[in-house]
Amino acid sequence: MATHTKAFGTQATDAPLLEMTIERRAIGAKDIEIDILYCGVCHSDLHTARNDWGFTSYPAVPGHEIVGRVTSVGSEVTNFKVGDLAGVGCIVDSCHTCDSCKKDLEQYCLTGFTGTYNSPDKHLGGMTYGGYSEKVVVEEHFVLKVPTNLDLAAVAPLLCAGITTWSPLRHWKVTKGSKVAVVGLGGLGHMAIKLAKGLGAEVTLFSRTPDKEKDALDLGADAVIISTDDNQMKSVAGKFDVIIDTVPYVHDINPYIATLGISGTLVLVGYLGALEPMLQTVPMILGRKAVAGSVIGGIAETQEMLDFCGKHNIVSEIEIIKMQDINEAYERMLKSDVRYRFVIDMASLKE
Amino acid sequence: MATHTKAFGTQATDAPLLEMTIERRAIGAKDIEIDILYCGVCHSDLHTARNDWGFTSYPAVPGHEIVGRVTSVGSEVTNFKVGDLAGVGCIVDSCHTCDSCKKDLEQYCLTGFTGTYNSPDKHLGGMTYGGYSEKVVVEEHFVLKVPTNLDLAAVAPLLCAGITTWSPLRHWKVTKGSKVAVVGLGGLGHMAIKLAKGLGAEVTLFSRTPDKEKDALDLGADAVIISTDDNQMKSVAGKFDVIIDTVPYVHDINPYIATLGISGTLVLVGYLGALEPMLQTVPMILGRKAVAGSVIGGIAETQEMLDFCGKHNIVSEIEIIKMQDINEAYERMLKSDVRYRFVIDMASLKE
Repeated sequence: MATHTKAFGTQATDAPLLEMTIERRAIGAKDIEIDILYCGVCHSDLHTARNDWGFTSYPAVPGHEIVGRVTSVGSEVTNFKVGDLAGVGCIVDSCHTCDSCKKDLEQYCLTGFTGTYNSPDKHLGGMTYGGYSEKVVVEEHFVLKVPTNLDLAAVAPLLCAGITTWSPLRHWKVTKGSKVAVVGLGGLGHMAIKLAKGLGAEVTLFSRTPDKEKDALDLGADAVIISTDDNQMKSVAGKFDVIIDTVPYVHDINPYIATLGISGTLVLVGYLGALEPMLQTVPMILGRKAVAGSVIGGIAETQEMLDFCGKHNIVSEIEIIKMQDINEAYERMLKSDVRYRFVIDMASLKE
Repeated sequence: MATHTKAFGTQATDAPLLEMTIERRAIGAKDIEIDILYCGVCHSDLHTARNDWGFTSYPAVPGHEIVGRVTSVGSEVTNFKVGDLAGVGCIVDSCHTCDSCKKDLEQYCLTGFTGTYNSPDKHLGGMTYGGYSEKVVVEEHFVLKVPTNLDLAAVAPLLCAGITTWSPLRHWKVTKGSKVAVVGLGGLGHMAIKLAKGLGAEVTLFSRTPDKEKDALDLGADAVIISTDDNQMKSVAGKFDVIIDTVPYVHDINPYIATLGISGTLVLVGYLGALEPMLQTVPMILGRKAVAGSVIGGIAETQEMLDFCGKHNIVSEIEIIKMQDINEAYERMLKSDVRYRFVIDMASLKE
């Protein structure tokens, strides 16, 4: 039997997020119920709440960087027991049968994966509700084991910002000695630096302004290149094997293509739209360079990333907020006034 | 001591190609002198003769699809002897020492490879002169072994059109069962079909008009999709692992991106310029798709391709012309009136 739970969501494009009550399904044989302890705040949450992408259904309850503790398990659940730590990222369901799902690439499920929020809910009808809530019910396959040695609140952003940068680093075979550049130092960018360093790469941050230099070096970057300085850009011409471009707005990627080495790849993980100004093919052809895209990661890969972070003591840099402060937090995010991820202490929702 | 040899070249942008005399260097210890029997006619020849790319030095002698017979070898030459068949493609020199050269990727030599024509000539000064000539002197490293079981004239285009499509097929790991599409059926496209089929791929041609369907199937394509027919395009949505795009003029690649499968790559080998209309990132991000470029291939890879063609009986489809007919051939190429490559019988130059 479905149960009611407290949540924070919004009823319209221009409405603030407020407390509301949502339904969670009764746990099925393969399901796990999780008491949510922390939920990271992703830019997608904000875009969805305000319908920036045009496909938000209201009410909308964001949140897809979820960590918590298991409170109930279905009869067929084998890998979790009550009391275990658990994580849920951006995906709560997929078809399990398509070529992508069979290859552990649920993020590319050919029928479309079910997002943790604002996706058609196969169980209850309506749309899925995210992690800005007391609890969530998720099929075991989509629940992650959380390392017990890490700061739990700071683990939450790994479930989206972490895997979004981990997946391209792994797919494009970043390893010890690889030369990696990261464009943009936000939630995604700071994780890209930490994870690439963890993998043994030499890491450079591209930033438009010098003010992020100290932070980037503190996070582990080996160098910072100011992208508006032609001489600095020339100093890294032809250098990088992989560039992870986290910038979420339209920007000229041609100058970064010039810094790729032979057979290098620039991976877009943040910008949804048309490449403007136009991409020039000559440098790509004469250097066998590629521009690619990548979205989050599969479940097995997310587990791999969490295990890696446990082993290498990698977490996100966070600022903890109360659930009730989410609207103010969104305003600060719009001004890039967060280093580097807000995480909601969900105990505040129970107050 | 340098020697004089007959050639065909042009003195200015708007001048026809006419007979002229050029110099070839005396063979050094590592050099091979080749009596040119056949030379393929590449679109680059035409672009260079007419200075379409803005960097032609005159006089210009085109031709980089050269096959012939060895007439003399230097004292340190070990792999060729007088009387052997030999081939020369687009590259006649490179630095031998950069990262690319050390990886057998002379086409991406970081100091710039020496093109067979219109490149600074390290030996004689001035610019290199291509294969529209009686003979050529080339360092052994850049001379290819030619299979003896193939029609020699039809081998010539393998040295550019062949390797230009072979290299991306190999780099992006096309193998038995891969789903490959080829955009455009010209000199490059027809070789892409033959080579991808030789590698065991399922091959589809994208063509704007139905008139090339029979030819494509005769060349070995499994299917032809008319790219202007929306229903046909939808029928191959998400299908291909690799697309080799040989189209040399500006065109919208977004519809082809839609036909790539998850993690698929579209490789541009023909178009030098800006991608217009603008490339849309959403389908790339949501399918981990890539757009890449590739140029010709390295010497070892060219030899691999020639050996493969010998084993699989693959040659280019050609129309043999006399040297004196080159200007008319260029006019026909501008109208795409060639199936699929002109090859000059260099005996005509000796008449």
